[in-house]
Amino acid sequence: MNHMELAGVFAPIPTPFADDDQVDTSRLRAALTRWVARPLTGFIVLGSNGEAALMDDFESDRTIVAARDVVPRGRPFIVGTGRESTQAAIRASKRAAEHGADAVLVRTPGFFKTQMTTEAFVRHYTAVADASPVPVLLYNFTALTGVNLLPAAVSRLSAHPNIVGMKESGGDVAQIADLVSGSAEGFHVLAGTTSTFYAAMCVGATGGILAPACLVPDACMRLFELTRNGHHADAVMLQRQLIPLARLLGPTYGVPGLKAALNVIGYDVGVPRPPLAPLPESAVAQLRDALAQFEETATASANCSSGHLVI
Amino acid sequence: MNHMELAGVFAPIPTPFADDDQVDTSRLRAALTRWVARPLTGFIVLGSNGEAALMDDFESDRTIVAARDVVPRGRPFIVGTGRESTQAAIRASKRAAEHGADAVLVRTPGFFKTQMTTEAFVRHYTAVADASPVPVLLYNFTALTGVNLLPAAVSRLSAHPNIVGMKESGGDVAQIADLVSGSAEGFHVLAGTTSTFYAAMCVGATGGILAPACLVPDACMRLFELTRNGHHADAVMLQRQLIPLARLLGPTYGVPGLKAALNVIGYDVGVPRPPLAPLPESAVAQLRDALAQFEETATASANCSSGHLVI
Amino acid sequence: MNHMELAGVFAPIPTPFADDDQVDTSRLRAALTRWVARPLTGFIVLGSNGEAALMDDFESDRTIVAARDVVPRGRPFIVGTGRESTQAAIRASKRAAEHGADAVLVRTPGFFKTQMTTEAFVRHYTAVADASPVPVLLYNFTALTGVNLLPAAVSRLSAHPNIVGMKESGGDVAQIADLVSGSAEGFHVLAGTTSTFYAAMCVGATGGILAPACLVPDACMRLFELTRNGHHADAVMLQRQLIPLARLLGPTYGVPGLKAALNVIGYDVGVPRPPLAPLPESAVAQLRDALAQFEETATASANCSSGHLVI
Amino acid sequence: MNHMELAGVFAPIPTPFADDDQVDTSRLRAALTRWVARPLTGFIVLGSNGEAALMDDFESDRTIVAARDVVPRGRPFIVGTGRESTQAAIRASKRAAEHGADAVLVRTPGFFKTQMTTEAFVRHYTAVADASPVPVLLYNFTALTGVNLLPAAVSRLSAHPNIVGMKESGGDVAQIADLVSGSAEGFHVLAGTTSTFYAAMCVGATGGILAPACLVPDACMRLFELTRNGHHADAVMLQRQLIPLARLLGPTYGVPGLKAALNVIGYDVGVPRPPLAPLPESAVAQLRDALAQFEETATASANCSSGHLVI
Repeated sequence: MNHMELAGVFAPIPTPFADDDQVDTSRLRAALTRWVARPLTGFIVLGSNGEAALMDDFESDRTIVAARDVVPRGRPFIVGTGRESTQAAIRASKRAAEHGADAVLVRTPGFFKTQMTTEAFVRHYTAVADASPVPVLLYNFTALTGVNLLPAAVSRLSAHPNIVGMKESGGDVAQIADLVSGSAEGFHVLAGTTSTFYAAMCVGATGGILAPACLVPDACMRLFELTRNGHHADAVMLQRQLIPLARLLGPTYGVPGLKAALNVIGYDVGVPRPPLAPLPESAVAQLRDALAQFEETATASANCSSGHLVI
Repeated sequence: MNHMELAGVFAPIPTPFADDDQVDTSRLRAALTRWVARPLTGFIVLGSNGEAALMDDFESDRTIVAARDVVPRGRPFIVGTGRESTQAAIRASKRAAEHGADAVLVRTPGFFKTQMTTEAFVRHYTAVADASPVPVLLYNFTALTGVNLLPAAVSRLSAHPNIVGMKESGGDVAQIADLVSGSAEGFHVLAGTTSTFYAAMCVGATGGILAPACLVPDACMRLFELTRNGHHADAVMLQRQLIPLARLLGPTYGVPGLKAALNVIGYDVGVPRPPLAPLPESAVAQLRDALAQFEETATASANCSSGHLVI
Repeated sequence: MNHMELAGVFAPIPTPFADDDQVDTSRLRAALTRWVARPLTGFIVLGSNGEAALMDDFESDRTIVAARDVVPRGRPFIVGTGRESTQAAIRASKRAAEHGADAVLVRTPGFFKTQMTTEAFVRHYTAVADASPVPVLLYNFTALTGVNLLPAAVSRLSAHPNIVGMKESGGDVAQIADLVSGSAEGFHVLAGTTSTFYAAMCVGATGGILAPACLVPDACMRLFELTRNGHHADAVMLQRQLIPLARLLGPTYGVPGLKAALNVIGYDVGVPRPPLAPLPESAVAQLRDALAQFEETATASANCSSGHLVI
Repeated sequence: MNHMELAGVFAPIPTPFADDDQVDTSRLRAALTRWVARPLTGFIVLGSNGEAALMDDFESDRTIVAARDVVPRGRPFIVGTGRESTQAAIRASKRAAEHGADAVLVRTPGFFKTQMTTEAFVRHYTAVADASPVPVLLYNFTALTGVNLLPAAVSRLSAHPNIVGMKESGGDVAQIADLVSGSAEGFHVLAGTTSTFYAAMCVGATGGILAPACLVPDACMRLFELTRNGHHADAVMLQRQLIPLARLLGPTYGVPGLKAALNVIGYDVGVPRPPLAPLPESAVAQLRDALAQFEETATASANCSSGHLVI
């Protein structure tokens, strides 16, 4: 995979489950066909958002195969292959490559928290990158794993020829700046928090892996393009408009929220897998309102822009 | 499994790995044969300490089968079957029962932290307990999972006929008291922190699942017996003697520490699985000193006791 | 102050405020006269519980003078003099000594959290202890200050001739064991968590500074005596009985809870100082029930005891 | 004070202490005379950065009087008057107003953490704002206080006619967006984290109270102006250049770092007050390098700018 392909907006797609709690590849194909038609840079399957933590290896394989079939060559197709043990992460990465992954996104192990030192992370990722047939992206999601892949570790790992970038899910923009400035030339830092996506790009992130990109792909992509092309005032306005929706999807309602919102707008992605539960109706109504509100403001402002913030 | 069997000291045994990073069932059988000869109440395989989080389902099956073969009927043989998804936890519990588990110890799911409410835990454990052919123990380990199975959830779950007890790994003795007082008659709360094992029994825990029980089984069992029989002064002295060793094994060096200490005293349990790494030599020396120190003080005091604390 | 006087139960008394939000020394004298009549070892004024953090230096002086007047010589009278700056802590300690304090209890500074290293604590306490005319007790309350006075710091400070002990407010019994084993001969570690008071004494604490000692002084003192004299089974039973009340007073309702409970049993200690607010009536009812429940069980069991725990 | 004056960059100036640990108003006047000559919007005395937590009321009065004398009318002069008790905060606010404060900045009380609910904050700030002769700014600094003044509380308080704005010290840009969108028209949210100052303005903050504004006032002011006037590409570049310096001053070295850096560039602001200690020489060298690096890059880029980010 060419490094340049890692600049842009990537949709971390959910995995549809049927009512019998089984992976539903038909629904996956149908939804993904629609996402592929949007101007998104690329796709992540089996990320945190894809409930990969709740799936076994067979289900993972089926999901990769079905998704790869829909995503055209040339659009980056990235597969989450993080596992707690080094050998399982290697095995998953090889299998993903075999099934057509362009790159793998490898979440930090985090079970044995006190043992997860920078040395341990460097050993783990070096072993995975040495063995993976396709490029590796590091993946730090402290809020879920309870461990932090520090800039010191990333700096060392960014020198590995098969480690091409990372996803930093946290919203601490200063840590993103540290990651960018401390890593090797050409290493890509992708942001995972939509509320601070613009700010992250301003300090050097080259793109984002953003749950709302499944829901409002055009807006997310437009935010990226506006920023890259220096139309900051418009970017800032769009960023502000995205925040309420992003906050609801991320910290508040998580995967059940994203699935509910997608179902609202006609993507049929089924229900979350237990122990996750479908969102209660009151929360669905709140998402419906936020979506309507976003559509309204985004439409109103799409054709007008000033260079000045109102301060 | 008779409820009464859940009073006592259980050893959460480590899983030996060979130098090629594969499960080594020969070493497992050899070590377990020695443990079985000690006066331990029962055994846990595939717990946190057993690096279960780093193993796949096939390896888990082989480990259960090998261990069951060594542990005589009548000694409680409990298998860790916690998984992130409800269906995987059910599947693992059924498989463990098939391979001879007397009960299963089911760690809380914890990946999607903000979704892990009391409602979610009650749904998850109820489904597992409904489906499991053998009794279920709840398992709360907040320091590793980042979620807390609160007394309110335990209270409700303790009424389920197939949920017979729990392991609480945290050292907060007041939370243990709450768990005991809030749960149904006959529900067993087992402590997971050796440093506060005596204190936990004093507020109603009926036993412990204690990593040091692999290393100094007789002392751990003696602490249990002394406490149960009301020989508190001796129990207190033994508890104090155990603390330095327990602190090194638990929060400081974790699984690599336990494996290193076992290798020191002649149990051949191999190395931890990557990304865990063997303990550095300086730390091994520290463990060796703590073991020697413990043996010395424990021997000195085993035959003498006063009823008075020196305050 | 003789070191031996630091073994026992100390009541950290609240400071009464009148309806006009002023210190009410009449109420203070009246309540303290009653406390002095109980078998408590000694008294703490201007501790956390005394709302010292909400009082100015003039009010502090008046409170010390009024309290000293009531507490007879020979009963340890300890004054809280923690301040954020070293010079203010020294000044407050000198003033307390002048007004008759037998010792001072100096809470860690904690405002500039990242700067509060072991070196900073050693400098701070050494300067205070060098300057204080009366013995100094260290005071660690991580839950309120956000900083932790580690065993390594305590170990060094325990060698200072004018530092005679410490209060550790946290309930981590293993940390108390570390503090005891790491500090100089004759250094007293006093526990601050009632729920784990018995457990703390079992690992070497020589007493406690316990909010419930204001409310049920005889019971707290009896728990101390039972433990010291090796009547562990009775101590354990009493400890268990105290836990529900202690949990309500400590983490749940704090100072407003203690004042409300005291008012319930006829100690007139007024209201908390804003921004603290009086407890709502529903919470007062809960405290009333816990008090009644405690009285009932404590009375029932006071004359019977077995040497055996029911496990 | 006119609301519009709260848009801009404010310097939270340190309080100089002499070698005898006393407030040194001569040094304060000299340094402040130089700050006043820079294009800063206004000044904060006795903020966190001013070591107000380490000073008594007399010292505070002297500091306010000396500073007011130097700051010309028309430049906002804001005094920190946060105290733990409501009445002390009121008293300090009145005294500050008497000595010439244009507004007061009132940090949340935070000692009794579990009691600091939204209700408690609303009561506290309402009482202070009712009583204060000058406008009140709320002040949330969770990393130091351990409590969080949530958007829900701010929303209610922003309706008070004498509460004109707030300082949010945290770097969570999404929380800043929530504060802006939830508060009354005309309420000013000022950012306290320099690394995310640009991002905070992009979501609606109207300015900042920034420690680096003491050190590189022109650059901080230029960042504000560039952003306000829609020169985003230049703003983004300048923001990136400021981050390394801001990170060293803030989370890493705190007040001792700021004082050391000011001494390096010729502002004589003395030493921090114990228990704070002067920065070790190695850290001073690191700050010197960061300052030199900043000067170099800032000069190089001051006259060139493109509209495009390099992504």
